[in-house]
Amino acid sequence: MEPVSADAVKARLATQAIETPSWAYGNSGTRFKVFAQQGVPRTVEEKIDDAAQVHAFTGVAPSVALHIPWDTVEDYGKLADYAASAGIRLGTVNSNVFQDDDYRLGSVTNPDPRIRRKAVAHLLDCVDVLDATGSRDLKLWFSDGTNYPGQDDIRARQDRLAEALATVYTRLGDDQRMLLEYKLFEPAFYTMDVPDWGTSYAHCLELGPKARVCVDTGHHAPGTNIEFIVAFLLRAGKLGAFDFNSRFYADDDLMVGAADPFQLFRILHEVVRGGGYEPSAGVAFMLDQCHNIEPKIPGQIRSVCNVQEATAKALLVDTAALAGAQRSGDVIAANDVLMDAYHTDVRPMLAELRAERGLDPDPLAAYRRSGYAERIVAERIGGSQAGWGA
Amino acid sequence: MEPVSADAVKARLATQAIETPSWAYGNSGTRFKVFAQQGVPRTVEEKIDDAAQVHAFTGVAPSVALHIPWDTVEDYGKLADYAASAGIRLGTVNSNVFQDDDYRLGSVTNPDPRIRRKAVAHLLDCVDVLDATGSRDLKLWFSDGTNYPGQDDIRARQDRLAEALATVYTRLGDDQRMLLEYKLFEPAFYTMDVPDWGTSYAHCLELGPKARVCVDTGHHAPGTNIEFIVAFLLRAGKLGAFDFNSRFYADDDLMVGAADPFQLFRILHEVVRGGGYEPSAGVAFMLDQCHNIEPKIPGQIRSVCNVQEATAKALLVDTAALAGAQRSGDVIAANDVLMDAYHTDVRPMLAELRAERGLDPDPLAAYRRSGYAERIVAERIGGSQAGWGA
Amino acid sequence: MEPVSADAVKARLATQAIETPSWAYGNSGTRFKVFAQQGVPRTVEEKIDDAAQVHAFTGVAPSVALHIPWDTVEDYGKLADYAASAGIRLGTVNSNVFQDDDYRLGSVTNPDPRIRRKAVAHLLDCVDVLDATGSRDLKLWFSDGTNYPGQDDIRARQDRLAEALATVYTRLGDDQRMLLEYKLFEPAFYTMDVPDWGTSYAHCLELGPKARVCVDTGHHAPGTNIEFIVAFLLRAGKLGAFDFNSRFYADDDLMVGAADPFQLFRILHEVVRGGGYEPSAGVAFMLDQCHNIEPKIPGQIRSVCNVQEATAKALLVDTAALAGAQRSGDVIAANDVLMDAYHTDVRPMLAELRAERGLDPDPLAAYRRSGYAERIVAERIGGSQAGWGA
Amino acid sequence: MEPVSADAVKARLATQAIETPSWAYGNSGTRFKVFAQQGVPRTVEEKIDDAAQVHAFTGVAPSVALHIPWDTVEDYGKLADYAASAGIRLGTVNSNVFQDDDYRLGSVTNPDPRIRRKAVAHLLDCVDVLDATGSRDLKLWFSDGTNYPGQDDIRARQDRLAEALATVYTRLGDDQRMLLEYKLFEPAFYTMDVPDWGTSYAHCLELGPKARVCVDTGHHAPGTNIEFIVAFLLRAGKLGAFDFNSRFYADDDLMVGAADPFQLFRILHEVVRGGGYEPSAGVAFMLDQCHNIEPKIPGQIRSVCNVQEATAKALLVDTAALAGAQRSGDVIAANDVLMDAYHTDVRPMLAELRAERGLDPDPLAAYRRSGYAERIVAERIGGSQAGWGA
Repeated sequence: MEPVSADAVKARLATQAIETPSWAYGNSGTRFKVFAQQGVPRTVEEKIDDAAQVHAFTGVAPSVALHIPWDTVEDYGKLADYAASAGIRLGTVNSNVFQDDDYRLGSVTNPDPRIRRKAVAHLLDCVDVLDATGSRDLKLWFSDGTNYPGQDDIRARQDRLAEALATVYTRLGDDQRMLLEYKLFEPAFYTMDVPDWGTSYAHCLELGPKARVCVDTGHHAPGTNIEFIVAFLLRAGKLGAFDFNSRFYADDDLMVGAADPFQLFRILHEVVRGGGYEPSAGVAFMLDQCHNIEPKIPGQIRSVCNVQEATAKALLVDTAALAGAQRSGDVIAANDVLMDAYHTDVRPMLAELRAERGLDPDPLAAYRRSGYAERIVAERIGGSQAGWGA
Repeated sequence: MEPVSADAVKARLATQAIETPSWAYGNSGTRFKVFAQQGVPRTVEEKIDDAAQVHAFTGVAPSVALHIPWDTVEDYGKLADYAASAGIRLGTVNSNVFQDDDYRLGSVTNPDPRIRRKAVAHLLDCVDVLDATGSRDLKLWFSDGTNYPGQDDIRARQDRLAEALATVYTRLGDDQRMLLEYKLFEPAFYTMDVPDWGTSYAHCLELGPKARVCVDTGHHAPGTNIEFIVAFLLRAGKLGAFDFNSRFYADDDLMVGAADPFQLFRILHEVVRGGGYEPSAGVAFMLDQCHNIEPKIPGQIRSVCNVQEATAKALLVDTAALAGAQRSGDVIAANDVLMDAYHTDVRPMLAELRAERGLDPDPLAAYRRSGYAERIVAERIGGSQAGWGA
Repeated sequence: MEPVSADAVKARLATQAIETPSWAYGNSGTRFKVFAQQGVPRTVEEKIDDAAQVHAFTGVAPSVALHIPWDTVEDYGKLADYAASAGIRLGTVNSNVFQDDDYRLGSVTNPDPRIRRKAVAHLLDCVDVLDATGSRDLKLWFSDGTNYPGQDDIRARQDRLAEALATVYTRLGDDQRMLLEYKLFEPAFYTMDVPDWGTSYAHCLELGPKARVCVDTGHHAPGTNIEFIVAFLLRAGKLGAFDFNSRFYADDDLMVGAADPFQLFRILHEVVRGGGYEPSAGVAFMLDQCHNIEPKIPGQIRSVCNVQEATAKALLVDTAALAGAQRSGDVIAANDVLMDAYHTDVRPMLAELRAERGLDPDPLAAYRRSGYAERIVAERIGGSQAGWGA
Repeated sequence: MEPVSADAVKARLATQAIETPSWAYGNSGTRFKVFAQQGVPRTVEEKIDDAAQVHAFTGVAPSVALHIPWDTVEDYGKLADYAASAGIRLGTVNSNVFQDDDYRLGSVTNPDPRIRRKAVAHLLDCVDVLDATGSRDLKLWFSDGTNYPGQDDIRARQDRLAEALATVYTRLGDDQRMLLEYKLFEPAFYTMDVPDWGTSYAHCLELGPKARVCVDTGHHAPGTNIEFIVAFLLRAGKLGAFDFNSRFYADDDLMVGAADPFQLFRILHEVVRGGGYEPSAGVAFMLDQCHNIEPKIPGQIRSVCNVQEATAKALLVDTAALAGAQRSGDVIAANDVLMDAYHTDVRPMLAELRAERGLDPDPLAAYRRSGYAERIVAERIGGSQAGWGA
């Protein structure tokens, strides 16, 4: 096979941008226990500082996603300036309509119209935040659903969902987008109101071009072929974003690439194949993870590097050889072309790329040597640590 | 709660029609072994005879689905007459593009254009059969997919699929429909070209109003909420048909209602709730099962009765009480209304209904007493038994 | 078939005892949100009061399980007296080695010997509680496991586990038992140290006759046949207890019987078949649920009734007819015998049974009318509500 | 980290032996279709010839497993000589009690004692084959189970199973072993009589030291951690063998390493960690695959190479660094040590190893150039192709 040139791959990798989420820097846990870690941020500014570290060492994490109301501030312009001075920008705005006692039976799909209005009002507030920060994307994830058969009317909840989405869509500016996430289960166990890509896709289609599907890699039923969904949505022009993480069983929110690095590679292969890696495709690449037992910043650095490695391998695929083997129906040869790229150890190439860009070839080791971890443990004393809902 | 009147339920049950598949009467098995049974049909006429028995004893199975080429005959008009004289009619036509060595790497999505043309030609032939039999529905299930990452181009296969479907759609008559079935896996293991309802829905939407989704209850990933899909498709006007069967693990094709009778009830509750039980909704109710170890005709009778029982329970739901409890957010009360219908023993009501219609109250016992089973064992000697691919 | 006599079934139902867990009366939730409910207990005594209500209305919930340290008191004898005066007794003692920051990487399997010693000391304290309360059973559930491949040594953790269990086993009194629960995943995502019944069984076998397996119905992989495990463990004399709850996807901890009432019936059929319903078998029947969105006491009453209904159906199975059909290899007839019992509406029989025992025939309605719910909302003001870890 | 020496790894790899199965060279398929391939063997000798090719090019596949009765011959001594002259030896003997109409409701667990006797007689015959071939291992896989609740008595089937196993065990010679395979589902769908490792382990424990568990990597429920089972069985001295293959959903029998190469690596890491790679451990490494759409011999060569690559990576793990990171509770560092080995491209090392042993560095390319494929297509004309049940 004709090898893809390392320089060409490095050139394409140089444009990569992976957004990290502000909430990954705070404490998180399971329903059984949130283990507190020392040095976690107490303010949104401290979250931005941590996100900036990830970018400083990897060079490919130039923005941080916000979660409203966790990251609510008076003045978002000032916050954007703060981020800029730290070397990154504010990214996607995530709404939160799941942490209020009112939302026990749902937010935008709640049978109670008062609660639906409250939820929609929050979503509209989030569009205000978009205006203020200049962010492009509003990401919507709904915990809405039911736990018991009969608890509520499945179809009526779709009507309510459609109405809420339409209201928010109408409010979007010309350059703003809505990303609709889906999830099979949790926190609702019998039905989720947006359980799968089909539901999200159908609503986005009805809403219009500014609505797109967000694929969270941990939100599928066992056995689901995620890269098929990615390929399908790219073909339909409806893939808006990724929430990357990895899972062995459910929505484990582990470091992306930790559970099934080959799956991550296959996903990125379809992204590249379908044009989704081109900036013009408008696909946002984000992490959405919980570092329950490992340190937060190293967890994000490792995850960013894992995405970068999988991307490098995807870019190494010899597409001409692949297409040839596929056309001729040579099953093993076609599989071999793909595996050849996957088996390649791309770490030396990435080390080179970093060196060329003035970065340390080993981001995690460099971060560890930097003293930042010790500094935040020493300095972030008092106040309340940021966690989910903090 | 205000009970639903038994007479009202019986009146609605009287209009029910459940189609049985011609292939359920022949031998079937797993990849490990097809266990031969005595007395199975050797011709399509004998399959029709057996299907007519199911109708004769249950009163709610008035048609039989055909599978082309398994049920290919010279003169479909004559076959329709044969069915009429046996007391039933010919129903849905099922295409088969998976049992030819040419289809090793796919039929309508095969990388080889010659094979794609061959497959599409078969589908068009099936529309000819529709014309000849006067059947309304062409049901399409594709075994197409890949076993290995890289084996073929996921996206290109969607393009080929879309092209094939469009060709067939164009050929449909005014009163004919295309039902597009989806399946998560098997016989392909890495990708299926129509793996889920979202894929089927998206294609049907693009094709137009004569294309609808067929839900096979055994074709989903573990943990999938099938009744949600049913409710969603009914809301979108895109539910075309059911292929009923039951499963514990994969596409087990067991007797419907045998593995999870509560799920079957929930599905039928959504059917009734969403108007899908009205004849005007155009939802076809079919069985698609394999009686690998149990006798075929009793297996079909039991299955038809299971669907009938689940429907009776669904019709018994006190919808006013349910809506009230849902509106008030009383989780347990709402669940109780639904469970109240489910826990009702509807067998006495169905026995009454049958007696009122001149049928034996216990179809299975009556069939067993009829001597038909012994007769076909004695008579169907010689020739080759019909099985998958026979 | 020869019907089983209703009187015989009622006589056997009269001896049933289902234990409710103290923690089910407090607040609970998912990792996303714990929705607070009004009137939940603030003390262990208030939990006992609530558990006593469930027994007062159902007649079959005579004991309450404790969770240490959530239910730690100075004087367990006094607590036992309190329970007795409320009409119930203290039951199984549950240890908790998962809610301390020290247990981030495990308790009895932690790589750090200091933390292992701390965990074992807690387990030994729990045996002291057994001594004080006179309870028979110590139930052990370990959240121990790892999130990432390589994080710790799978085999070394088994060695540590075996050592800890042996230490606790040695400390057990002659009439005390250890119940070892298993769980596939959560809160650890890559490995759990006791992930399945095989692991629990192997350890119990090595420990000796006082160690038995506890089956939590929500702790299995998708597609696991739980009743097979029940039958197997009963045959081996190693089934110690059930933690009943129901689930659609993972460890949802929903009301038992809500997700799959047929599965619950099949489990109880195997219990009855295998002699596990006899008091001499030493099988403890307990609930382990979280009423995240529904009210707690009604949730427990409904669950107790669901177990009772499933048991009644299991007792109705015509065992002679079943054995006959099985012996003759008549698949459909054998299935029919089982389904015949399942389809029977046992609610009238249970209403009779309750009336005969001086109880209201409808426990949930009677509880609702009792005014208890309103009373606790009014009275339980101030203090901190009990929740997980409260 | 201190790298593991490549020479040390190569030395350990030189002793590896992976057994290929005779049936992998014949046709296979799904229940929907067996696609015929040209040049497949018509006799057991031709299967041996094909297996010898795999060894000739890889150097690590020195034996071939037999399947009785598919590979039944008059004179096994002569067959062993044939194999020897082809450069390989006869390996594990696999029994087949699933392809006779008598086994519709089970073989050794069938309710009919006549059929049980027939099945046991076959198993005893297989021990005769062991005697004749000098093979060490009898591998038992039972398709036995039920499709419907109530169909048969779960517990009675365990009694019958235990009795049959004990009869066969008693017949084993001093140096012979019994390997008991387990499988979650298929071809039975409601219960399998040996569904999981716990069941197999419990029976083997009761039988004695000559009985061990066989782990087929495709036979687990979704989400099962296979390497945990491997580690557990090695610790208990009860891991007897692997049947390697890979799967995305069910028992797909794809080329091992094709679906989840990281899982294969983790399994082999536990094998090495637990001493299972030492010849003295008595763990047999076998393939059990179906090449439904790809050519058979290349499929086996690729699979053997995949196991070899995963083993090389497992041998590269820096165990001292890993143990250090684990002891110190450094989650990310410990994971990094493991991933460092996994990310290494071992293909150059394997190419070297092959060259040192006089083999072509690229076994698949060498096989393709050899002309063998063309030769068998030309020569194997007439006769009936071997397939499942041939």
